[in-house]
Amino acid sequence: MPAPIPFKMLYAGLACALLSGPASAAEPYPDAIASDPARLGWMVGSPPPPERQVRFDDGSYFRFPQLRWSVSNFRQLMPTMNISRGLDAPAPLERALRTDIDALTFLPLGSEQPMTWADSLLANYTDGILVLHKGRVVYERYFGVLTPAGQHGAMSITKTFTGTLAALLVAEGTLDPQRKVADYVPELARSAFGDATVRQVMDMTTGIRFSEDYADPNAEVWAHAAAGNPLPKPEGYQGPRSYYEFLQTVRPEGRHGEAFHYRTANADALGWIIARVSGRSVAQLLSERVWSRLGAEQDAYISVDASGTPFAGGGMNAGLRDLARFGELMRNGGRHNGQQVIPQAVVDDIRAGASREDFAKAGYDLLQGWSYRNMWWVTHNPNGAFMARGVYGQALYIDPAAEMVIARFASHPVAANAASDPTSLPAYAALARHLMSR
Amino acid sequence: MPAPIPFKMLYAGLACALLSGPASAAEPYPDAIASDPARLGWMVGSPPPPERQVRFDDGSYFRFPQLRWSVSNFRQLMPTMNISRGLDAPAPLERALRTDIDALTFLPLGSEQPMTWADSLLANYTDGILVLHKGRVVYERYFGVLTPAGQHGAMSITKTFTGTLAALLVAEGTLDPQRKVADYVPELARSAFGDATVRQVMDMTTGIRFSEDYADPNAEVWAHAAAGNPLPKPEGYQGPRSYYEFLQTVRPEGRHGEAFHYRTANADALGWIIARVSGRSVAQLLSERVWSRLGAEQDAYISVDASGTPFAGGGMNAGLRDLARFGELMRNGGRHNGQQVIPQAVVDDIRAGASREDFAKAGYDLLQGWSYRNMWWVTHNPNGAFMARGVYGQALYIDPAAEMVIARFASHPVAANAASDPTSLPAYAALARHLMSR
Repeated sequence: MPAPIPFKMLYAGLACALLSGPASAAEPYPDAIASDPARLGWMVGSPPPPERQVRFDDGSYFRFPQLRWSVSNFRQLMPTMNISRGLDAPAPLERALRTDIDALTFLPLGSEQPMTWADSLLANYTDGILVLHKGRVVYERYFGVLTPAGQHGAMSITKTFTGTLAALLVAEGTLDPQRKVADYVPELARSAFGDATVRQVMDMTTGIRFSEDYADPNAEVWAHAAAGNPLPKPEGYQGPRSYYEFLQTVRPEGRHGEAFHYRTANADALGWIIARVSGRSVAQLLSERVWSRLGAEQDAYISVDASGTPFAGGGMNAGLRDLARFGELMRNGGRHNGQQVIPQAVVDDIRAGASREDFAKAGYDLLQGWSYRNMWWVTHNPNGAFMARGVYGQALYIDPAAEMVIARFASHPVAANAASDPTSLPAYAALARHLMSR
Repeated sequence: MPAPIPFKMLYAGLACALLSGPASAAEPYPDAIASDPARLGWMVGSPPPPERQVRFDDGSYFRFPQLRWSVSNFRQLMPTMNISRGLDAPAPLERALRTDIDALTFLPLGSEQPMTWADSLLANYTDGILVLHKGRVVYERYFGVLTPAGQHGAMSITKTFTGTLAALLVAEGTLDPQRKVADYVPELARSAFGDATVRQVMDMTTGIRFSEDYADPNAEVWAHAAAGNPLPKPEGYQGPRSYYEFLQTVRPEGRHGEAFHYRTANADALGWIIARVSGRSVAQLLSERVWSRLGAEQDAYISVDASGTPFAGGGMNAGLRDLARFGELMRNGGRHNGQQVIPQAVVDDIRAGASREDFAKAGYDLLQGWSYRNMWWVTHNPNGAFMARGVYGQALYIDPAAEMVIARFASHPVAANAASDPTSLPAYAALARHLMSR
């Protein structure tokens, strides 16, 4: 019998890492093949045998390796809101598949042993990866239980959509980045967010107390997850009962505007600001302004709390090809099919990035020289690459110089991307060089 | 404060009527305009004001008039499984809108006062209605919060999809309707289903004890709902924990094969048989064999229990146009775009119907002369009309002689279709006559 899961940890939300560590340091994670969710047969059978069930009510859905099934099936586990693609025909993605990519080699970060592109996909537990070059599909692979017609948790790539929507509202003049959060959401006046500017929230330079240390049961991330949990609250529960109620409890830590601190709560606060300004939820606005205008072939979806608020910090799920379509839209200066969906000024602003000095204070060893702008990660490398990132290895990587977009879904046993970056970031750079050379 | 909802009633599943009666007989339901969910502003705001929230955890989602919002938003309230339309372009529905339909008059059943078509839509709380004539859209209207890009609970129309899938497997020879249920699902051997034939399940002539009297807290429908409830079971709960476990507890009442008895549990048992025979859940099979082959413009979805089993008796949700596309497919002998999606023999078998004598024993005053075959309602009227029906007024009406298909979603305050039939069935017949006359 697994130990019972405390309520506040039961529904942790899609962005959370969820204690998926190995049983002991001496017991390594099973590799990508041994943990392949199709091979393990999760949820196969009518009913699936008990030891092959992935359930919400016993917390098994977020244990590794079950998580490898869950990330492609979140809607079966929790309530969600649709992000409609609209009703028109999808915009076909032209295909020009290449056979020379699997054998491409690169040096993983911190290693002197070359690795092939094909091997990297196993090394970092890839569920699906698609590469566009000059807008055409040059590479597309699926593993485990993800298929082209499936949707996968985007985790913190959700934040990037939230940040892009905010930047769009700024460009249109309906949201003033210099105003205080409390001007838009008076309910947040007494929280740490109240006197932060919208810009500080968008770039995560707020000084707020929000620990995402999943090993610490008192970390704020658990209170956030409990608040967002759509289940009826247990008797005696005294905490916040929605994402919005949680945000009102966030306390200050440090000062605003002095350093980049990656805190999921900023994205949820930004979602609230967007909802207040636009009169629409993040999901509705995303559908109207972006998802229905990029030729998507599938609806996306997002998890919600008990009062119907989408989890703007991590609840989105989408098809791999559609994530790539969004990347291609951004690579093309916000245009799709002759329409300016995202203002060029927004794309330029993201590409220019934010303060690299502020970013450096966060201490990401593997991301030196980067910055974080409008909830995008900006590499400031010579190619001007920028990306969206989510725990367990989710990535949308846009390399303007190489005219390349990479969309990747993954289910690495370690949440933090420091576990995935060594075998992915240099692979992306190597592929960019390769594509530019021919 | 509303009274707390007993657990077994909290998550009642989509097919259940859910005690939505008026506070007293002296207090009639608000009419369609007064109860319009858009006008009432459910779930508008960030957050919506407490008195305008529709929640799962307090049971408000299934009270009238909140239910009028819920039926278009079930996925925001509970976990669901996708029914993919595939990734191709939808098949456009040609439009030939007519302006002469709203003024059409008919006599409601039991009334001598003519009613117009337009008025009937308000009288029976229509959320959306679409009429195809010779495959072209001649009428399409949406009310409240339903839109062309939304999905609506199909309620017991779900059963019709389940029954059609079973008939398809029968036609292909992979399911033998004369074999006993226990031959396919040994777990049901000791239940009332065990010695019924598959055919008896498909036509609901089994002798099983399954009360759908929602006013009786001991009715089996509540045990069914509690079993299918995806929430963690409360402490001390001793009942079945999934739809499949529930089905094993169903006891006999009367004899098999002697009369039609409308019992939701038959559809769930049939879903289990289908899953066992095909190796796929009803949702997966429906996507592969039907939904991805009729030119649908939206994915459909279906609610699931905690072990991931779809609610084959009532959990499906779909777009109105796609429901109409399915009707058109059936009108065309199972063909769409030159492909035989459903065998012609299946359509013929449904149209021929089942025993009208068996049906008469169920005592439906308004449906005299009808029968029930493969989970379709067959009118045996001169036009050979047959239909799918769900509580609160859901309908898919196919009139071969008039070359007419009507898809309708509704949220009538009264679950039983006897409340909707007087203002809908004669309207459909009148429209058929009208379309045939020109």
